[in-house]
Order: sequence, then C-alpha cells, then structure tokens
Amino acid sequence: MASNEILYILLPDFASHEMVYLMEAISSDEQQLKPNPKYINKIVAPTMEPVTAIGGFRVLPDYSFETMPHDFAALVLIGGYGWLTPIADMVAPIVREALDKGITVGAICNGASFMAKCGFLNNVRHTGNGSDQLKLWGGENYINPDGYIHQQAVSDGKIVTANGSATLEFAKELLLLLDNDTPERIEMYYQFNKQGFCVLFSE
Amino acid sequence: MASNEILYILLPDFASHEMVYLMEAISSDEQQLKPNPKYINKIVAPTMEPVTAIGGFRVLPDYSFETMPHDFAALVLIGGYGWLTPIADMVAPIVREALDKGITVGAICNGASFMAKCGFLNNVRHTGNGSDQLKLWGGENYINPDGYIHQQAVSDGKIVTANGSATLEFAKELLLLLDNDTPERIEMYYQFNKQGFCVLFSE
Repeated sequence: MASNEILYILLPDFASHEMVYLMEAISSDEQQLKPNPKYINKIVAPTMEPVTAIGGFRVLPDYSFETMPHDFAALVLIGGYGWLTPIADMVAPIVREALDKGITVGAICNGASFMAKCGFLNNVRHTGNGSDQLKLWGGENYINPDGYIHQQAVSDGKIVTANGSATLEFAKELLLLLDNDTPERIEMYYQFNKQGFCVLFSE
Repeated sequence: MASNEILYILLPDFASHEMVYLMEAISSDEQQLKPNPKYINKIVAPTMEPVTAIGGFRVLPDYSFETMPHDFAALVLIGGYGWLTPIADMVAPIVREALDKGITVGAICNGASFMAKCGFLNNVRHTGNGSDQLKLWGGENYINPDGYIHQQAVSDGKIVTANGSATLEFAKELLLLLDNDTPERIEMYYQFNKQGFCVLFSE
C-alpha cells in the first residue's frame, strides 16, 4: 500500500504562510471527517534540528533529508530564502525521484524558482514568482518559458506551482489533484478564506 | 525602556494561518528595513514543550506561561481548539495584566471568543467569529453585544479582534496600531497578499 504522507520541505527562513492552508485542510480532513485519514502531514528539514520560519518561530521536523521515507503521497516545496543557499541542492535528487515515480509535487514561490533551476518545469505548464524570476533562476536549465502562465497557481500533470502570494490557490490546486475532498468542499474552503466570513455571511 | 517583544499565545491545536502574516510582516521589518528592529516575535505556550498546530506541525516555544516576561509590546491570542480547554483559563490573568498596563492586545477567532468569555470586550467595539459565538462563549460576562461589528477585523483602543478567516485584516490592523511601518507600506503588504501578485501585476 502506498504511503499517505504528504512531505513538506522546509529550509531555513521558510515562508510559513505558504504552507498553513494546505496543511490545515489536510489535517481537518484527517481529524474531523474520516476515521481513517486520507493523508497525513509530515515536515522534512535538512536535519532534525528546529527550522526557523521567516516569521521567527521554530518548527520541529518529523524527518531529516537522511531519515525521510522514499515512499510518500506528495512532496511540497515551501518557499523562503533557503532556496537561495547551497543546502537547496540537496533537494534536487529528492524531487527528481518523486517525479520519476509519478508522485505529486507542489512548489510555491522560491520553491517554484528552484524547480525551474533544476529543469523540472520543462514539460509542464507552470507559474511562479513571474517569468523573469523563473528565467533568472533557471538559466540554461529552463527551456520552457512558453509554458509559463501568469496566474496565481497552475496545475499540470503531477506538478502544481504558485507564486508567493498564492497560498490559497496553491492549496486548492493540490487539494484537487490529491482528491482530498469533493471539489465543492475544496472550493468552499478556498472562498471562505479568500473572501472572508463577513463577505460571505451577513449577520 | 519598554520591551519590543510581541508575544504570541499558542495553545495546543492552534490555527497557524492566523499568525503567519503578522509575524512575517514584523520580522521582514526586523530583517530588512532597520538595523535596530522595532519589534521581535516571541512564541509563548503553556510549557516549553513543543505545541502542535492544527496543520500538524510542532512549534518550539520561546517562553512558557511561567517564564514569559511581564513587560512586552503586544500580546496576540492566536485561535484554535485549545481555547475550548481548561488550559485557556491560565491566559486570563495574562491578558488582564496587559490591558491594565495599556498594552496592545490582538485576539483572533477563538481567541476573540475567549476575550468575550473573560469580559474583556465590554468596553470596545469588536468583532470575532460572529455575534452568536461571542454571546455563546461570553455568557453573563459579555455585556457588550452592541459593540459587535460585522467586519473582518476591528481595532478600538488597544484591542484588535478578528474572525478566523481574517488573518490578513487582523495583521493589517495590528501593524497599524503598532506603527510597524507607514500606512502605505502596510496597505501594500495587505493588498499584495489579499489580491495576489497576478491580479496586481500583469506580465
């Protein structure tokens, strides 16, 4: 049986706003709707030491790059400044293995830029922090600028990409791709958080 | 000199999406704009043990209820399910002391409901997860239903309240009250994340 773990790659100075909506939707399903959870969230960091968010708080990893499993349901690259540092290179083989196995990969903000840098966006329509940033990071490895779509999040095949302001759209596309809930309930979750309680519900 | 620490109260099963935008704005200011940071984020939890978000990840506290300082720049109650448990009672004297000293207090989602329960919303215009929930939690201690305003976030005096879908509006009102940056830059931060990169900037 395939693993039901969704692995979130967090590098130092990660952008925590980019993971919270996806993680909460996955766990709400886990906690409230089904006796046997469809998916379980797990944090992966370079080591088992706490990893610090841009916001300054420290998260305890569930796995390090060394102890993480090779079988999982999805891999999610959360953005932040760590993707600009050498430690990011250690993530390339992890993503390559996931893609080779046909496992869903999500990448947001600098996580998407890193995908361009590794040549992982060359066969899919995709987005990220603007086409200029993808070209800058991608260099010679990024030969698919025509596949860039200027929208908040793009889902194509097994890859979902998004810009750093698109945490809700990123969550929605991954929840749909992972079939985490019905499309109607996923859309409700998205709209509730996008528009807000007071816009959707009058007193 | 008054402390520049902003304390975030996290109880077990806290709603992490409710803290990330405020924390990132405070720390971006900290890291990028000024050599001497105006404010610093600190996590407070019941004990020094890791506290788990609804999304399933574990955050290491900077302070416990026992070790937290009595002088700080602001106190922020992040929502979640912990406010429904007895441990929340330990937060009441912390909030009371802050209010008595004229320190800024933010409360979102069940954090706002808890404020109603403690009678802390009786002298301010406020909001929360709907007036019915405030009345339910507040019971006899909540004698200000007329002060309820049905909008995403409300700032009055030193108290900012918001509903659980209003993390961006909550951040904006607290950033303004704390004078963290210019109103123009705070509005830009809000709009960038609310509307999104692709809506605001065409290619």
